Amino acid sequence: MQKMNRTLLAGMATLLAMQATQVTSAAELPPKPSVGDILKRSQPGDWRPLDPDNTLYLELPSGRVVIEMAPSFAPNHVRNIKALAREHYFDGLAILRSQDNFVVQWGDQNEDNDKARQVKAAQKSLAAEFTVPLKNDSHFTRMPDRDGFAPQVGHSNGFPAARDPKAGQTWLTHCYGMVGVARGNESDSGGGTSLYVVTGHAPRQLDRNITVVGRVVSGMPLLSTLPRGPAPMGFYDKPELQVPVNAIKVAADIPEAERARIQVMRTDSPAYQAVLDAQRNRGGPWNKYSPAYLDLCNAQIPVREQKP
Amino acid sequence: MQKMNRTLLAGMATLLAMQATQVTSAAELPPKPSVGDILKRSQPGDWRPLDPDNTLYLELPSGRVVIEMAPSFAPNHVRNIKALAREHYFDGLAILRSQDNFVVQWGDQNEDNDKARQVKAAQKSLAAEFTVPLKNDSHFTRMPDRDGFAPQVGHSNGFPAARDPKAGQTWLTHCYGMVGVARGNESDSGGGTSLYVVTGHAPRQLDRNITVVGRVVSGMPLLSTLPRGPAPMGFYDKPELQVPVNAIKVAADIPEAERARIQVMRTDSPAYQAVLDAQRNRGGPWNKYSPAYLDLCNAQIPVREQKP
Repeated sequence: MQKMNRTLLAGMATLLAMQATQVTSAAELPPKPSVGDILKRSQPGDWRPLDPDNTLYLELPSGRVVIEMAPSFAPNHVRNIKALAREHYFDGLAILRSQDNFVVQWGDQNEDNDKARQVKAAQKSLAAEFTVPLKNDSHFTRMPDRDGFAPQVGHSNGFPAARDPKAGQTWLTHCYGMVGVARGNESDSGGGTSLYVVTGHAPRQLDRNITVVGRVVSGMPLLSTLPRGPAPMGFYDKPELQVPVNAIKVAADIPEAERARIQVMRTDSPAYQAVLDAQRNRGGPWNKYSPAYLDLCNAQIPVREQKP
Repeated sequence: MQKMNRTLLAGMATLLAMQATQVTSAAELPPKPSVGDILKRSQPGDWRPLDPDNTLYLELPSGRVVIEMAPSFAPNHVRNIKALAREHYFDGLAILRSQDNFVVQWGDQNEDNDKARQVKAAQKSLAAEFTVPLKNDSHFTRMPDRDGFAPQVGHSNGFPAARDPKAGQTWLTHCYGMVGVARGNESDSGGGTSLYVVTGHAPRQLDRNITVVGRVVSGMPLLSTLPRGPAPMGFYDKPELQVPVNAIKVAADIPEAERARIQVMRTDSPAYQAVLDAQRNRGGPWNKYSPAYLDLCNAQIPVREQKP
């Protein structure tokens, strides 16, 4: 390849003068379609709209964060979080914590004292849903890439997921943008009254230790750029540092015209397998080395605005 | 374990009443020392100061970002970046780009036009140092954890690193906070005039494609919270969005009293091996499941203020 390049360049004096450094570059990778190329070529059937009944809007003063929930992986928690949203549990609470390279978390700063926000029809805590039986999930598409944390990894209906066939379990993985249910030391001490979003390198050690309920599909920068809290674990130790949560709404509860028009690429489509391959086997000219490997949490899950 | 817990709890009525949910929790992991516990027990010899001659201060209006450089892995680039800093190449340039879950990058917005900042004694571009011979690095401590991107991973003198013994090569890995040399399509089109810092999930596909020169050891939040740029790849498309770089200084060039007093844990110390183990094999009571695995880019490299 190097030799071919030299030969090619020898006949192209002008280009050689402009790109003199190319002669010294290493072997070139052949060009390959990029993720952008594949998205451009994708068909309407490669995409699906969000289900408004399983979509949450976290309304912040800076804008809206759109969260897609995963009822296949946490049916009871998803139901409870929707109930909490519908009884306005979250409205007027705040983001309490932003820890660099880890998570942003919101909830009730008075949870443990007598000013605590009351839970009405919803439940304050639930039995853990750290994993669910394999049969709950019929959308899994396995990646060939080996993973340090789980026997199998891949995607299920727009979410990064892992499986242990021997144990008969599957679970959502803590990649960037995933949403989990904060809890105390006891497995069933959480119920969704306090939620967090991953804003750093995937803390996969939390997998199977926490109920994961969904993924942010739009608005991550509103969370990832929040000032880091000065107290341990990134807590905002003064109330004035906290960021108000105006409301959390279920998309189905608001007029259609006010909903986010977002589509997610179907992760069981051939187009998505091409997206994964474009990230696994990268082509030139920029790339000089391709790892022939894709880390689950680096696998983009494309999202786009739905055309009106 | 579950049964033992029940027996134990049966004799502790008061505690049972307070922690009623514990009865339903899964098998408990035995408690283990945390990273915090190990840091508290660490000895002065487990730490080393930064070498002022290989430390850069990126001075922003919001404060100082401290970068430790790795001359073993990129000797020519480190030398050149110091030369650029010493001829004040960076002073008054700007952060041009912040892409969510990826990188922050600074440099000269006029690099490609006739207002370009001139490089004086330093070099504008250099031959790539994507990898170096294994013999360059005598500090490597291998992690037992398997890695998708490289045959071996571990740490070298405070930096996450990978090795390919067959190829006789080692290189620094693109974990959170690592600093790399931006380049064009040609391998040797960079030289350090534009640098970037990883602010998202480790883009390890850049390993062996870019010269990595160091790591941010203090001040990451000053970079990670910057507003994301609205243009493609997170570029700030209007000059007023750019964040000024007041200066980049070599620590050795400023009076000792004005230097950051930072120590880094020696990654070849037994204390650091204990830090890794505490992250690999996590104990209860909070953790219910331990992956017995540590991702290279989740392995904290402890840093502390040096006591005066």
